[in-house]
Amino acid sequence: MPRPPLPAAVGRLFSQPNPAVIATVRPDGQPVSVATWYLFENGRVLVNMDARRKRLQYLRTDPRVSLTALKEGEWYTHVSVQGRVVEMIDDPELVDIDRLSRHYGGGDYPNRASKRISAWIEIDRWHGWGDAANST
Amino acid sequence: MPRPPLPAAVGRLFSQPNPAVIATVRPDGQPVSVATWYLFENGRVLVNMDARRKRLQYLRTDPRVSLTALKEGEWYTHVSVQGRVVEMIDDPELVDIDRLSRHYGGGDYPNRASKRISAWIEIDRWHGWGDAANST
Repeated sequence: MPRPPLPAAVGRLFSQPNPAVIATVRPDGQPVSVATWYLFENGRVLVNMDARRKRLQYLRTDPRVSLTALKEGEWYTHVSVQGRVVEMIDDPELVDIDRLSRHYGGGDYPNRASKRISAWIEIDRWHGWGDAANST
Repeated sequence: MPRPPLPAAVGRLFSQPNPAVIATVRPDGQPVSVATWYLFENGRVLVNMDARRKRLQYLRTDPRVSLTALKEGEWYTHVSVQGRVVEMIDDPELVDIDRLSRHYGGGDYPNRASKRISAWIEIDRWHGWGDAANST
C-alpha cells in the first residue's frame, strides 16, 4: 500500500462528504467497525465522537485505525486509509462536530447537550479502488 | 451490544445489497478496512475474496472480523456485526462470487480467471443505528 500524500485526484475524492466506516481494535483484539463522518484536512483525518463512546477507550489503548470512504452511489470506487490517532481534543463548543455536520449537508449538529471529542488521524498508508485506484 | 439473532426488521435491512465495509486485524495489530460485498444467509455472513488477498492470511491468523453495512442513500441507518470467520472454502466454480455479484445487481462475476475463496462469518454481536437501532 502506498504512503501519503494521496495523489490529487484521490485527495479530491476523499475530501467529499463520503459515507465512511472507521475500524478500531478492542483491547482483546476484536476489530470494531462503525459508520462515521470524517473531514480530510491538510493531509490528516478528523473524526468526532460522543465522549461516552467506548471507542475512545480503545483508541487510548491502541491508537491505530483504518477508515474506508465509499463514493456515494458508485461505491466500487472507494478509498481506505490506515493510520494512528495522534491527537484527541475536547470539543466543548461543538466547533468540530458542527463543521462535520455541515460538511455532510446538515446544519449545526442538533444535539447540543452531549460532550464531544475530536480525534486527528495521521495517515500511514492508503489504498484506492475504482476511480481512486492507486494508478491514478 | 446485543447478541444474535438480529430482530426481523434489522435482518431484512441487513439482507439488502447494502454498501459495506469489512475490518480485519493484521498480525501486528493494525486494523484493516475495505469495501466488500456480502450476503446474509441463515444468520451467517458470506464474503468472498480473490485468493491472493493478504486479508486471507490475516483471517487465518485471527478470524475475528467486523462488518458495517450502510443503507444506500440514507446511511445514518447502518448495521454493524462483530464475529469470526468459521469456515473458508475454495470457490472453484465461482458459484459464491456469482451469487454475490447478482445480489448486488450485476450478472455473473466478470473475472473468470482469478481463484476465489469464500468465508463464512458467525455473528457474535450486532449493533444498529437509525432505522436499525437496537430498540426496533
